[in-house]
Amino acid sequence: LSREARFSAFDKLTRRIQDEQLLAPLWPDGETVALLDQTRLPFARDVIHIRTAEEMGNAIRQMQIRGSGAIGCAGALGAYLAVRSAAKQPDQWNRLVEPLRNARPTALALRLAVDEVLDAARGAADPLESAANAAVAFFERQIGMERALGRHGAAVIADGATVLTHCHSGALAGAGYGGRALSVIRAAAESGKRISVIAQETRPYFQGARITAWELRQLGVPVTLITDGMSGAVMEAGRVDVCVVGSDRLAINGDLANKTGTYLVALAAREHDVPFYTATTRYNVDPTCPDGRHIPIEFRPGDEVLTINGQRIAAEGVDALYPAFDITPAKLLTGIITEVGTLTAPFEAKLRVLLQNEKDIVA
Amino acid sequence: LSREARFSAFDKLTRRIQDEQLLAPLWPDGETVALLDQTRLPFARDVIHIRTAEEMGNAIRQMQIRGSGAIGCAGALGAYLAVRSAAKQPDQWNRLVEPLRNARPTALALRLAVDEVLDAARGAADPLESAANAAVAFFERQIGMERALGRHGAAVIADGATVLTHCHSGALAGAGYGGRALSVIRAAAESGKRISVIAQETRPYFQGARITAWELRQLGVPVTLITDGMSGAVMEAGRVDVCVVGSDRLAINGDLANKTGTYLVALAAREHDVPFYTATTRYNVDPTCPDGRHIPIEFRPGDEVLTINGQRIAAEGVDALYPAFDITPAKLLTGIITEVGTLTAPFEAKLRVLLQNEKDIVA
Repeated sequence: LSREARFSAFDKLTRRIQDEQLLAPLWPDGETVALLDQTRLPFARDVIHIRTAEEMGNAIRQMQIRGSGAIGCAGALGAYLAVRSAAKQPDQWNRLVEPLRNARPTALALRLAVDEVLDAARGAADPLESAANAAVAFFERQIGMERALGRHGAAVIADGATVLTHCHSGALAGAGYGGRALSVIRAAAESGKRISVIAQETRPYFQGARITAWELRQLGVPVTLITDGMSGAVMEAGRVDVCVVGSDRLAINGDLANKTGTYLVALAAREHDVPFYTATTRYNVDPTCPDGRHIPIEFRPGDEVLTINGQRIAAEGVDALYPAFDITPAKLLTGIITEVGTLTAPFEAKLRVLLQNEKDIVA
Repeated sequence: LSREARFSAFDKLTRRIQDEQLLAPLWPDGETVALLDQTRLPFARDVIHIRTAEEMGNAIRQMQIRGSGAIGCAGALGAYLAVRSAAKQPDQWNRLVEPLRNARPTALALRLAVDEVLDAARGAADPLESAANAAVAFFERQIGMERALGRHGAAVIADGATVLTHCHSGALAGAGYGGRALSVIRAAAESGKRISVIAQETRPYFQGARITAWELRQLGVPVTLITDGMSGAVMEAGRVDVCVVGSDRLAINGDLANKTGTYLVALAAREHDVPFYTATTRYNVDPTCPDGRHIPIEFRPGDEVLTINGQRIAAEGVDALYPAFDITPAKLLTGIITEVGTLTAPFEAKLRVLLQNEKDIVA
């Protein structure tokens, strides 16, 4: 057996993933880190093996792993791989992790995770084992946050409820329990409530159709797909009891940046008196951002809208716009579900308390 | 030359289509009716030749021609084909048009058009020429309504405006000028205003991406595509000046049934003080329907959401819902653009006047 396979921290993590039936986006596997290729789901379940920090950065860049929690775990295990590549040359580590650290410019947790693991390894008697321990600690802290967030969020889901969600804010975007929005749904289901989900497909990349629906099937939660234009129609038909979405970034006043289409769901929910929640963690709250007007919206290439599986959907000469996020103002949120509880308006003081909590409060 | 090709009414109509650069969905062509196969647009421009009323009914059923105005014209020319099949056996006409009359159960204009043409032929000295004249009169009345509607609607579009529209409410859904919503855009552009359009792709069938965008390109109007979840994002970015959509059916109080996704656009428009109009004709107003709660929403097979070009977008075991329409309450409408002018709230009395107008008021 290789030395890595004997690290008790890796052992403990892989056992936990099995015992708790986590849908982990990646996990230590002998001398490599195994990673489920999310670009192929749900039609193929390909596992790729990552051997270096650089390969981990590439996997992130190619969207084989995505979602803020998952990218944090990838950063932690990727930093471990960098230490492994040069255990006796700590002066090389920063160079080795640089492409990984910058694989997604807006991913705060990625840089935090990389730094945390390198800090633990630096000056340690056994840098490699210390890096392994720190990477697993980061991973387990994420799992703990998801479970805590799920427990708090489950309280707002009634037995028999139909929950509408948008895009993918689930296990594969996190550490494997349920990420953010799907942790709430998973915890509600595990507490014995009979719930079902309406998932929006999420054009242009169909994360809702491909990944959210697949995860819910794995959990045995009934799931019905709609297109991104149908939330109003299903609410008019009285088919939605509560909305729970994730959050890409939260301004300190509670304004929410999330995958485009979220805002329309929130507008429809208000009109039909359907509670609307975002599930988030401290890692998604930006204290330097006073409100949603200060969150820059990424306009991605319009070609991503114009083609599906390489096939064009519109005539030549037609352009497209792809605002990747929209802003849901805090006034439309019934509450913000976090790892320390569900916050209600006014949000700012409560979000500042969330940010001041020790990082391991819910580990 | 065949007898039909010499009907002066057919001659006049085909000349008008050319002279006025109409994008007609169908037109008389010698002994047949030529029809542009809309299921193939924009990737192929296939013209099929319809020889009987039964074939016309099949083309409607297969969605090779769709949209209330276009289906009305198809009914008129299809009834002419029935008379042509049995010019000397008027007792056969009702039997021959029956499958055509019922090709789309909710299409009011289809039945009106068929009946109008058969009524004209019945007892006429020359039933076939009378049927041709009546079919062309129906077609030209539609063109006149579109031009009138466009003229009235153009007044609400400012020079330099960006207009957001949903689904396809254009020439190929009408008689060739611009149907309803696109008549407004066409008339504004023809009046010299520099306008551009943001078109929503309209899942699951992509009518916006395929047909609306193609028509606007034919007219030389710049068009940018977005997905159905992006109207809120582009309004937050201040990129929309006015919304104009069609209408499948209007309750007498002004509540609007239109392709799913319309309602979300209207909610976002209200939030951002963007004027929101529907373009409609008397044929879409249902005086027997007091309000939107009385408009039944067709839930179509979920499989239509789950596959694109025969390729599945979600895991096996995932279901889908497809509410074909949603209801936009009258309170969200800035105005209703019609062939007699733009109506403002309260709508009911004004819609009743619209219905009482003689059918040829704007021919």
